[in-house]
Amino acid sequence: MTGEALDLHRKLNGKIEVRSKIALTPDVLALVYTPGVADVSRHIAEHNSVRDYTMKRNAVAIVTDGSAVLGLGNIGPEAALPVMEGKALLFKEFANIDAFPLCLATQDAQEIITTVRHIAPVFGGINLEDIAAPRCFAIEEALQDLGIPVMHDDQHGTAVVVLAALLNAARVTGKRFHTLRVVVSGAGAAGTAVARLLTCSGYDQTCMPVSDIVVCDRQGIIHQGRELPLHKQQLCTITNRSNRTGTLADALEGADVFVGVSSGGLLTEDMIRRMNDNPIVFALANPTPEIAPDEAAHAGAAIVATGRSDYPNQVNNALAFPGIFRGLLDAEAPRVTNRMKLAAAQALSRTIDPDENHILPSVLDKNVTRSVADAVRKAAEK
Amino acid sequence: MTGEALDLHRKLNGKIEVRSKIALTPDVLALVYTPGVADVSRHIAEHNSVRDYTMKRNAVAIVTDGSAVLGLGNIGPEAALPVMEGKALLFKEFANIDAFPLCLATQDAQEIITTVRHIAPVFGGINLEDIAAPRCFAIEEALQDLGIPVMHDDQHGTAVVVLAALLNAARVTGKRFHTLRVVVSGAGAAGTAVARLLTCSGYDQTCMPVSDIVVCDRQGIIHQGRELPLHKQQLCTITNRSNRTGTLADALEGADVFVGVSSGGLLTEDMIRRMNDNPIVFALANPTPEIAPDEAAHAGAAIVATGRSDYPNQVNNALAFPGIFRGLLDAEAPRVTNRMKLAAAQALSRTIDPDENHILPSVLDKNVTRSVADAVRKAAEK
Repeated sequence: MTGEALDLHRKLNGKIEVRSKIALTPDVLALVYTPGVADVSRHIAEHNSVRDYTMKRNAVAIVTDGSAVLGLGNIGPEAALPVMEGKALLFKEFANIDAFPLCLATQDAQEIITTVRHIAPVFGGINLEDIAAPRCFAIEEALQDLGIPVMHDDQHGTAVVVLAALLNAARVTGKRFHTLRVVVSGAGAAGTAVARLLTCSGYDQTCMPVSDIVVCDRQGIIHQGRELPLHKQQLCTITNRSNRTGTLADALEGADVFVGVSSGGLLTEDMIRRMNDNPIVFALANPTPEIAPDEAAHAGAAIVATGRSDYPNQVNNALAFPGIFRGLLDAEAPRVTNRMKLAAAQALSRTIDPDENHILPSVLDKNVTRSVADAVRKAAEK
Repeated sequence: MTGEALDLHRKLNGKIEVRSKIALTPDVLALVYTPGVADVSRHIAEHNSVRDYTMKRNAVAIVTDGSAVLGLGNIGPEAALPVMEGKALLFKEFANIDAFPLCLATQDAQEIITTVRHIAPVFGGINLEDIAAPRCFAIEEALQDLGIPVMHDDQHGTAVVVLAALLNAARVTGKRFHTLRVVVSGAGAAGTAVARLLTCSGYDQTCMPVSDIVVCDRQGIIHQGRELPLHKQQLCTITNRSNRTGTLADALEGADVFVGVSSGGLLTEDMIRRMNDNPIVFALANPTPEIAPDEAAHAGAAIVATGRSDYPNQVNNALAFPGIFRGLLDAEAPRVTNRMKLAAAQALSRTIDPDENHILPSVLDKNVTRSVADAVRKAAEK
């Protein structure tokens, strides 16, 4: 595999390209460039009509600082580029969006915020990507007034797909969604966003909460009694209502759902056995899940999902982000809200008639993006 | 024409698009995105090989602040976007370069510099565009250490094409290039760069100077006795050796060449009559030239060039910038030098066997880019 991916990338030398949408003749040249284009510029300056006459309506910037790339960590902007190109490729293939990677030579939150503000005029949306916690939270929040949607996909794309998967997993196992007890392992970008979406905390307050949610980090359950950085303090205010303490194993006692967005091998069969009947296990760490799917099944898990394509129930952001941004662009939405994320998750869950090995559709299912996009657009237009 | 350009732009809603270079199958997906792409990211992080495995090798950012767009002036980043898209289209059509417009929501020189530094990792070159003088000089100079070439096309693209045109105009009129007396009308981005290239002043000192050059602004000849802003003070040190004073008409007394990059209607037939025998008149103001071509001919101009496509001898940056950047990218040049610009101008001048109505090739001549690119690449490799 290693050689194969490298060979393909060397051959392609760039997975995306910029193409003209019109053949160049002398007549066309006089319209798309000087002198004709001056009339278009004048019109935009006078009528604020940039979305009607340019690429802005369909353009998304994929912005990263290369600080939290895949499971590789802080590898920097250059090494992040092939991932962002891949993301741009998916944007085009699934949602016909013109996405362009911008890998920044800074990892300072304020500088990233300022840079995004400066490059915004060309784009209808900003996809923040692979930016480490906790700065990802501050950056995203500071940019909500930009006038175009700014979404950190590692947070909300993941949260939307997890919520969709959980809706269907509850349905398959006969559990009532609102009574679920959920344990999230990992308090980074993804874990925090999952907790926020499942508890309906965020920039708006549209609600579809689960009954109880506890988040664990490497030190165990996140609770009021611990000394915590700001974003984990905020997690305390929306999770762990009964103020539990202890380890991940303690948290899982009687829980219905394990959502792992942490690291490989954290979850044992014994822990699963201490969960409620028909436990739901999302072991999403990549490339090594928190527990191997066969071990999870052996321990009694009713549903097992991973982030991998070589097992059933793949939880992959590509199920969400193309449709979310398609809907945001179509609606000319100024920001993404919880209402839109919930609509996206519900639409995604409804694209499949679920069973224990199919709680989510295939990443390559061409209908998914349209369903998610329509739901987001309708939610945005409300 | 107005309606036609607007209609076309509304229909296209973006003249360029981002396209995938490979069809997406499940196997390909696993290579271009997770998990396969991780190997590529790791390789780049370990071997600093971003140019070999990504789009960087072929990508150019077109950066503007919308402060000096065409003849429209400071219309802002949104209204500048159709022009930058048009430029990206030409980059692709002529030089197969993947250029992307970045129209910045700031007109502060330091903020523009910082933003370009931050977005640099994805690109193999930066084309600064339509940024007003004098900040365009400071911005470009501050970015010469970036490690990739940063070129303000309104300066150097124009200067290269003017030099090429002048080489051929001298040939056609039987004048010796090194003895030419040149008057430049306009001390903005283009005028300054023309003066610098013709006097061989710049970041390096490769030389092909004309005998004498005088620059005029709205107040007349730029000379040591005037109170001048910094960039015009610098012009004084490289031009106007005999420290002439007076008006544009005074400057033209006995001159061989008029290069107008100022505004329409400045030049009169009478002024041309005061020039040397066989005067060369480049009236490049757009859309209205400094003098109408038929008036210039009537006054005795041996060669007349304009910026317009509806007259002979069109001086158009599109003859230079695609080839210059193609050569810079092919050579992986860290910056553009006078040596490369001179090579580009000489190559451009040699693409045509000139006569009085053909001192430059057609903008649509497909051979031009390759000739210019090869010359720049060879100069860069020296």
